[in-house]
Amino acid sequence: MTLLTILQWIDLIGVLFNAILGAVIGRAAKLDIIGLGVLAIMSGLGGGMMRDMMLQIGPPIAITDGRYITTALIGAAVVVLIRVEGRWWDRIYPPMDALALGAWAAAGSLKTLEAGFGVLPALMLGTLTAVGGGFVRDMVLRRIPGILGGNTLYATAALLASGVAVGCWYLDAAVIGSLIAAVVGAALVLLARWRRLSLPVG
Amino acid sequence: MTLLTILQWIDLIGVLFNAILGAVIGRAAKLDIIGLGVLAIMSGLGGGMMRDMMLQIGPPIAITDGRYITTALIGAAVVVLIRVEGRWWDRIYPPMDALALGAWAAAGSLKTLEAGFGVLPALMLGTLTAVGGGFVRDMVLRRIPGILGGNTLYATAALLASGVAVGCWYLDAAVIGSLIAAVVGAALVLLARWRRLSLPVG
Amino acid sequence: MTLLTILQWIDLIGVLFNAILGAVIGRAAKLDIIGLGVLAIMSGLGGGMMRDMMLQIGPPIAITDGRYITTALIGAAVVVLIRVEGRWWDRIYPPMDALALGAWAAAGSLKTLEAGFGVLPALMLGTLTAVGGGFVRDMVLRRIPGILGGNTLYATAALLASGVAVGCWYLDAAVIGSLIAAVVGAALVLLARWRRLSLPVG
Repeated sequence: MTLLTILQWIDLIGVLFNAILGAVIGRAAKLDIIGLGVLAIMSGLGGGMMRDMMLQIGPPIAITDGRYITTALIGAAVVVLIRVEGRWWDRIYPPMDALALGAWAAAGSLKTLEAGFGVLPALMLGTLTAVGGGFVRDMVLRRIPGILGGNTLYATAALLASGVAVGCWYLDAAVIGSLIAAVVGAALVLLARWRRLSLPVG
Repeated sequence: MTLLTILQWIDLIGVLFNAILGAVIGRAAKLDIIGLGVLAIMSGLGGGMMRDMMLQIGPPIAITDGRYITTALIGAAVVVLIRVEGRWWDRIYPPMDALALGAWAAAGSLKTLEAGFGVLPALMLGTLTAVGGGFVRDMVLRRIPGILGGNTLYATAALLASGVAVGCWYLDAAVIGSLIAAVVGAALVLLARWRRLSLPVG
Repeated sequence: MTLLTILQWIDLIGVLFNAILGAVIGRAAKLDIIGLGVLAIMSGLGGGMMRDMMLQIGPPIAITDGRYITTALIGAAVVVLIRVEGRWWDRIYPPMDALALGAWAAAGSLKTLEAGFGVLPALMLGTLTAVGGGFVRDMVLRRIPGILGGNTLYATAALLASGVAVGCWYLDAAVIGSLIAAVVGAALVLLARWRRLSLPVG
């Protein structure tokens, strides 16, 4: 229960940070205030919404649980009210973003398994949860989504974190497994960023 | 009941006008006939389909109620058969389009509230209903969606109309509220178009 | 039963060939290995997933039936491991791709009819099943989707195949009708490719 609460908070922190990132990118693209809000919602809630629309076990949690939209809008408001760029942001953003990626991947995998699906769907929807929002955001701004060929191994890290979460779920250790998954996924993202790792071109 | 019927007709008129607009844009982009039909369906039905896919209270009304697809296809046929550009079109299009935006926003908000959700989801899905189709149409044609930074305050007007509809719903005046919402939303779109209003860049 | 099994196999062969095509296009766009996998899944499974998300009669078959993801990933692996271009590929690809288009259109139409919907939704979702994956793939890579104005009459062939499947379903000949639909759709695609047929610009 307590660990589950921790995971929920990591999930919401992920929404906040990705919403901020979406709004920052939106400002760079010279969108207006509503545009920032839309991009914040897409970046912060898009992956989970796509996952829930596929699982068809009820409306997306982003709609049923008011904290999600609220958090995404707070993220947009932060960008409008404060200059979030600069050294402070450059230091705090990467680890929070990486942790959120791992937490989202774990959350998506577990939700899929709990809904009665197998390993492959769990890996696919875990990864979708983690990278889907950024994917849509990039498409909207007419960029080829970074995860298809970027150098931070985002999708790879999401897949790895999903794999850890799925493995731990089968070992009856879902909650602690989620934390491990989040940390493992985050570690790979940070390592890739630091070492400029990338996958071979296909 | 009679007012509800009026709203349904405004909804369908919105489908028709947005389908025509989609097909006109498709022709400007030199698409073939099938392409016009696809863009007409996307523009006219896309927002409502996305809303219904999220609400998960059954298949999209665009599929279950044959009048919707038919109306969208009529819109495409109109563009293929008649030259819709020119002074006549320039006069009739803006008010109908603006009214449809408001009506769609109200319809989306009410459907969300009736499904048991709260204020924030109602505002979000009301806005999505109103602007979602145009959003997808712009993405398909590789433009940054106009609502993210355009000068007609489309998204702002949709949000405002949703707010009016939600407020009236809580006052037990859903149907008359929808009409007010449609008019208020339309007024803001037309005012913004006329006065070239725009939001500050974020 | 046996014919149904044949159709299922054609469906999966369609997944395989479209996944391969997605990965080939991804390699041409210099995506990394994960990017190829994502494009293979989108191309091979996207149309059916969108159809199932709209029908709302349960999670997409691409998730519930493990053979679908597996087949799409095999397609990506084939592209990574083997050079699929060249004369051999140029000969085998067009007919398989065309057959899959027809088979997908038939499968989508029948699933929609079986779910209790009418003719127009069946035509729309049959076409969506057949061309949806390629549509999303093109959007991701920032091309205007080929089906909107290409010269292989993809969407037209999908619509035609859907029409044949729907007609045969009403004549109580769904399974044999699907085969006819697949062949008719395939024939039009190949004819259009060979003769460079195209629709008039709208």
